[in-house]
Amino acid sequence: MTRDTVGGGDRQAAAEWWHTDIIDMEPNRITFRGYPVEDLIGRVSFVEMIWFMVVGVMPTPGQAKLIEAALVSGVDHGPQAPSIAIARMSMTCGGSLNNAMASAVNVLDDIHGGAGEQAIGLFRDIEQRTNERVDIAGACREGLAAWRHAHGPIVPGFGHRFHQIDPRAPRLMGLVAEAAETGDVSGRFAAVAKEIETQLGEAKGRPIPLNIDGATAVIFSELGLPAPLGRGLFCLSRSVGILAHAWEQQTQGGRNKGPLPKGWLWQYDGQSTRPYPSR
Amino acid sequence: MTRDTVGGGDRQAAAEWWHTDIIDMEPNRITFRGYPVEDLIGRVSFVEMIWFMVVGVMPTPGQAKLIEAALVSGVDHGPQAPSIAIARMSMTCGGSLNNAMASAVNVLDDIHGGAGEQAIGLFRDIEQRTNERVDIAGACREGLAAWRHAHGPIVPGFGHRFHQIDPRAPRLMGLVAEAAETGDVSGRFAAVAKEIETQLGEAKGRPIPLNIDGATAVIFSELGLPAPLGRGLFCLSRSVGILAHAWEQQTQGGRNKGPLPKGWLWQYDGQSTRPYPSR
Amino acid sequence: MTRDTVGGGDRQAAAEWWHTDIIDMEPNRITFRGYPVEDLIGRVSFVEMIWFMVVGVMPTPGQAKLIEAALVSGVDHGPQAPSIAIARMSMTCGGSLNNAMASAVNVLDDIHGGAGEQAIGLFRDIEQRTNERVDIAGACREGLAAWRHAHGPIVPGFGHRFHQIDPRAPRLMGLVAEAAETGDVSGRFAAVAKEIETQLGEAKGRPIPLNIDGATAVIFSELGLPAPLGRGLFCLSRSVGILAHAWEQQTQGGRNKGPLPKGWLWQYDGQSTRPYPSR
Amino acid sequence: MTRDTVGGGDRQAAAEWWHTDIIDMEPNRITFRGYPVEDLIGRVSFVEMIWFMVVGVMPTPGQAKLIEAALVSGVDHGPQAPSIAIARMSMTCGGSLNNAMASAVNVLDDIHGGAGEQAIGLFRDIEQRTNERVDIAGACREGLAAWRHAHGPIVPGFGHRFHQIDPRAPRLMGLVAEAAETGDVSGRFAAVAKEIETQLGEAKGRPIPLNIDGATAVIFSELGLPAPLGRGLFCLSRSVGILAHAWEQQTQGGRNKGPLPKGWLWQYDGQSTRPYPSR
Repeated sequence: MTRDTVGGGDRQAAAEWWHTDIIDMEPNRITFRGYPVEDLIGRVSFVEMIWFMVVGVMPTPGQAKLIEAALVSGVDHGPQAPSIAIARMSMTCGGSLNNAMASAVNVLDDIHGGAGEQAIGLFRDIEQRTNERVDIAGACREGLAAWRHAHGPIVPGFGHRFHQIDPRAPRLMGLVAEAAETGDVSGRFAAVAKEIETQLGEAKGRPIPLNIDGATAVIFSELGLPAPLGRGLFCLSRSVGILAHAWEQQTQGGRNKGPLPKGWLWQYDGQSTRPYPSR
Repeated sequence: MTRDTVGGGDRQAAAEWWHTDIIDMEPNRITFRGYPVEDLIGRVSFVEMIWFMVVGVMPTPGQAKLIEAALVSGVDHGPQAPSIAIARMSMTCGGSLNNAMASAVNVLDDIHGGAGEQAIGLFRDIEQRTNERVDIAGACREGLAAWRHAHGPIVPGFGHRFHQIDPRAPRLMGLVAEAAETGDVSGRFAAVAKEIETQLGEAKGRPIPLNIDGATAVIFSELGLPAPLGRGLFCLSRSVGILAHAWEQQTQGGRNKGPLPKGWLWQYDGQSTRPYPSR
Repeated sequence: MTRDTVGGGDRQAAAEWWHTDIIDMEPNRITFRGYPVEDLIGRVSFVEMIWFMVVGVMPTPGQAKLIEAALVSGVDHGPQAPSIAIARMSMTCGGSLNNAMASAVNVLDDIHGGAGEQAIGLFRDIEQRTNERVDIAGACREGLAAWRHAHGPIVPGFGHRFHQIDPRAPRLMGLVAEAAETGDVSGRFAAVAKEIETQLGEAKGRPIPLNIDGATAVIFSELGLPAPLGRGLFCLSRSVGILAHAWEQQTQGGRNKGPLPKGWLWQYDGQSTRPYPSR
Repeated sequence: MTRDTVGGGDRQAAAEWWHTDIIDMEPNRITFRGYPVEDLIGRVSFVEMIWFMVVGVMPTPGQAKLIEAALVSGVDHGPQAPSIAIARMSMTCGGSLNNAMASAVNVLDDIHGGAGEQAIGLFRDIEQRTNERVDIAGACREGLAAWRHAHGPIVPGFGHRFHQIDPRAPRLMGLVAEAAETGDVSGRFAAVAKEIETQLGEAKGRPIPLNIDGATAVIFSELGLPAPLGRGLFCLSRSVGILAHAWEQQTQGGRNKGPLPKGWLWQYDGQSTRPYPSR
């Protein structure tokens, strides 16, 4: 439904240029997808509001519990993660928390923040390959082959360079199993992830277990989230750790914090010292 | 407590360079301020996790409800807000959601995102001025005078350029009143804000009501939040609307979305056209 | 050549982690790719320094003239460009010039800043298709077909949504022609671009002339620049206009500058106002 | 002078909202402060264009030489500088060069990028204190006292935490001296800086020599640059090193480059491991 717009003509064209389904506003009135803001404040949780704003529907309580769990699990992975290190370094350069958060969230890109998005795409592709003739094992084989043909050998959502078993994944998968029992989710994507894990382990001869990106991708796939929003929600989640570390750094102090202790130098591998030729 | 560090010497110096109280990690183990991550997932809400990560303590249920309300209330104020417009424009330039979120959060600076932080500082200053001899009205007069002397005439957290009554503020203040009755907060900062509102209205001869920045500042002041984190938590809140709008823009499509409809031009006020002089 | 590193062991591992060929440093000594900084200051131009730092070789004077021209031509395309608008909006939100520059440069992504990079890739691909059996026209036909198969119908570097003839392109191509006469460049990539322009125009039945992205891509291809650096150098160039507009906005003043004049609203196309259901 | 604007009314209001003196445009025509772009390309250097765009006047050849020197001198200070480290880390997270440049430029804030701006302010303040009664030594004493009263003990532009003598500073000051001899600059600000250096050294009992921020601040003060643009031009200069390092990192490869070698951990100083209490 379209609000009446005073003015018409050019002003209407400008209003259309910025059209949205998300928020409507008049003086003293703000509605989000139709609900007055004062109805939402105090009645919906922050996580329900996140889902409602981004996806457009209000989650059920059982779904909200899964979303809470996914968002809690990704907040931080320590200062060796580029996002967290950058947050801390930024705060020693003189800007404010919003600037540090921006520089840090900016690096949650394809490699640092994209695995969940990619895993949702993979899981969904495999789920759609299952049908009367193709069982889940066959669909996984097909889907994994197609993924590797298009994207190379790394399968997103499995294995971890630091943990043998990522402690967040089994806990999240336990919650998905509970939600499948109560009918809040179907459990189909949990089954897909389990089968991929089995096939990867058999091929490698050692376990390549589901990691946090894979486990949150199961949750978001079960809830019907468009794949790119997997990255978007991870950005919201990691922003918490980014903020916590930026703030801790501010309380610790320091100026122009480099990656290594003060006075340490990098290794130079380039040209020997040489005079610049006169011309 | 300090984890044993293998290596010592230079490696220990590097570990110290990145010391933190927030997160500890070993292969297959992650703890946040001492709690294993698998204990937290599924048991604490995202908002409890936010507060615990950033402030260091777990909020009570009554406090968590206020924090939920504050975070829900700030998610979005429409495409006329620079943060939201920038999120939408960014998504048409070819980057990913994390990039759009970064450029948008980056502008939540002193003017666009700093009023809450400033209001916390003002409220706290006034609260500390009250004592046996100075009542809240006197402390407000002193505090407002000190603020204006240092920062100029604009009092953060009051009045709105668009709304006469910001619909979010009374709802938030109602929740603070409820929490004061149950003892989850003291209500002292709500009283400070109310008195400021009264004094501003009397001086202007018309109401200058509390706005969302002031109302969330009351909540955060009641909960003992350091002032700069008022901005930090607003960044988390507004990131939700930023993500929602960035994603909606992506589904709408468009390339290189400028501020005005395609083909419209800006007004040029500079030098007339002139040939570049030969030299 | 590797500088001696005091310490060895862990400290050496940390130094290697940050190894570079670009800069070496000791107290009171800085060298860039071997040249002492004090040799370069006052003797090389900023553009020569840019090329030397990024590409690793010092350009000839004739090459430097082309690089100057390419960098001059891309500085600004007015406030309808998202990068320029974002720079101006950012400056009204309370941050500093570096913050505004960051948010603005961030959007010079695949669509807003990637055409030059893509055109270099296309030109280089076509140039490599020419051989004893395939003339330039044939190579263009092959290369354009391959490009469209991989990337869709839009050919980067040709046509403009605002200009029929982009006034920067013919001027730049004139300079390339001069440099080809003096032997500073081969002119092979100018010929490729000319042939693409011809083929696109014949197919469309109207001219689809080379634009600034195409013309700078010709220059950078002639000079052997890796394609991604086409975007990188455009970022340096556009940063000039970004800075100029951010600063002009600061002198104009304004707070929280939205895309449309104050008081204008966007069009809302979503759900009608509805009460939030009690649960 | 104002271009005729087709439309009037609301469209004119939108055009005014984005008014500028910098660039005018019609189809097939682009002018910068009145000069057609095709006049500038091939005739002005990139540095002349930078100054013309940002400051509004074309520098003399002698002035342009100083600006070239200032911009050359600040391009890079190695991977221990947060800006350079962030550029390198960002490139391993999956984004493009523009994203890495954005995150890196963003940290050139008050501490990492603001010293030049602050030094210009200090030099200008001191220069204005000199008059018939107050000589330069007296003005320096007054100006330094006022600076310290307002900003604390650190005097911007002098001393260096790594170099005893910053090798860039004497070279830049030599060029300023040459320009003063030819009349391209007055030399007044070089004298101010020299006097500050003397007074700081006498007070400390050891040399606190001018550093690069101070030397470039002398140049920019001599040329009449508004202080905030000192930071802006440093951002342009350092963007060169940022780009060079981001690109080198891309050619080196790596994924999610943390600050320390892979497998190294930070020191944890927080709460011991504890179970999360049941509630």
